[in-house]
Amino acid sequence: MSEPIDFYFDFSSPFGYLAAREIDALGARHGRVVTWHPYLMGVAMKATGRSPLVDVPMVADYSRRDMTRCARLADVEFALPEKFPIAGVRPSRAYYWQAMREEAGEAEPGSAHALAVSLMDAFFGRGRDISDEAVVIEIGAEHGHDAEALAAGLADRAVKDRLRDETDAAIAHGVFGSPFVLVDGEPFWGYDRLAQVERWLETGGW
Amino acid sequence: MSEPIDFYFDFSSPFGYLAAREIDALGARHGRVVTWHPYLMGVAMKATGRSPLVDVPMVADYSRRDMTRCARLADVEFALPEKFPIAGVRPSRAYYWQAMREEAGEAEPGSAHALAVSLMDAFFGRGRDISDEAVVIEIGAEHGHDAEALAAGLADRAVKDRLRDETDAAIAHGVFGSPFVLVDGEPFWGYDRLAQVERWLETGGW
Repeated sequence: MSEPIDFYFDFSSPFGYLAAREIDALGARHGRVVTWHPYLMGVAMKATGRSPLVDVPMVADYSRRDMTRCARLADVEFALPEKFPIAGVRPSRAYYWQAMREEAGEAEPGSAHALAVSLMDAFFGRGRDISDEAVVIEIGAEHGHDAEALAAGLADRAVKDRLRDETDAAIAHGVFGSPFVLVDGEPFWGYDRLAQVERWLETGGW
Repeated sequence: MSEPIDFYFDFSSPFGYLAAREIDALGARHGRVVTWHPYLMGVAMKATGRSPLVDVPMVADYSRRDMTRCARLADVEFALPEKFPIAGVRPSRAYYWQAMREEAGEAEPGSAHALAVSLMDAFFGRGRDISDEAVVIEIGAEHGHDAEALAAGLADRAVKDRLRDETDAAIAHGVFGSPFVLVDGEPFWGYDRLAQVERWLETGGW
């Protein structure tokens, strides 16, 4: 049985979003499960002294155009939200809250994943501010999550620790961007490397 | 007659090198001439406050691996030179010296281009320090260029001005990276966008 592919992303990352829509099918074509790891890329950006693309002169205009153009090419509904970038803390915690319930056998496998997809669709497809707790709770409700339970989950020490640990582990693995994919230890940074990820899986590397 | 494709690169850029080996054939497949514009990306980096990838913590290790992996995939002989990055001033001036001679009808069309290819091959293929005047002159000699004439060209006011003007013009067109391609005004940054450049030429845009 092959090892899972590790897929790292930040909820505020447009290219993470585009990759999230393709990575599972890509893995499945090669008999690989994909483990999702939302993390706080801002912590890694701080560690590397970098700024978000949209804060860099010249690069900002280009990158907005590039994101939109890539989304159109992928036929994905996408508009850069007015409030951008946002802190991915709350949607990430919502993901791990549900993932931990899955791990404890208290929730359907795949339900954390489905929640993450809805959160990203809300942000990039409909411009909803998913850094806002009320918005996360509203989207959770669409998945049948009780508002009080989810609110408690977002404030839960174990959930907070899990996100911190996942972020630390990502950085310890050399992850600094979004999307970032590890295939049997081989790192691939960027939506534009997915074709190489696929080639790597096909060929076993080159 | 379609407008030429504008191809911007810095002589010190590995991904510029990889793109340089593909861009002419790509253009030709769509009946387009490609105009090469070596420029000093460092000036644009300064304007945008960015650092070379190999100077950024975490990103450095990844990007070295990524460059080498991309080169292997493209079947291009490549090793990151020990002295890297280098200043592209001298190879760029050598290019424009020869390009200006072409423009004046004093040199074979395409000879500046051929010299640029040899300079990049020497740097990325054989680790020669092409920021060094003696190395540029040696490689020029392989193309039949008289050492004294080339040395004078590298010091010529008009050649220096041309490189400065080309760099200013690139930045004025929103160019900040290497490779950077403009197709009928549409900007594409990065070796990993060549597939989109090709798609753009095929479809007229999306």
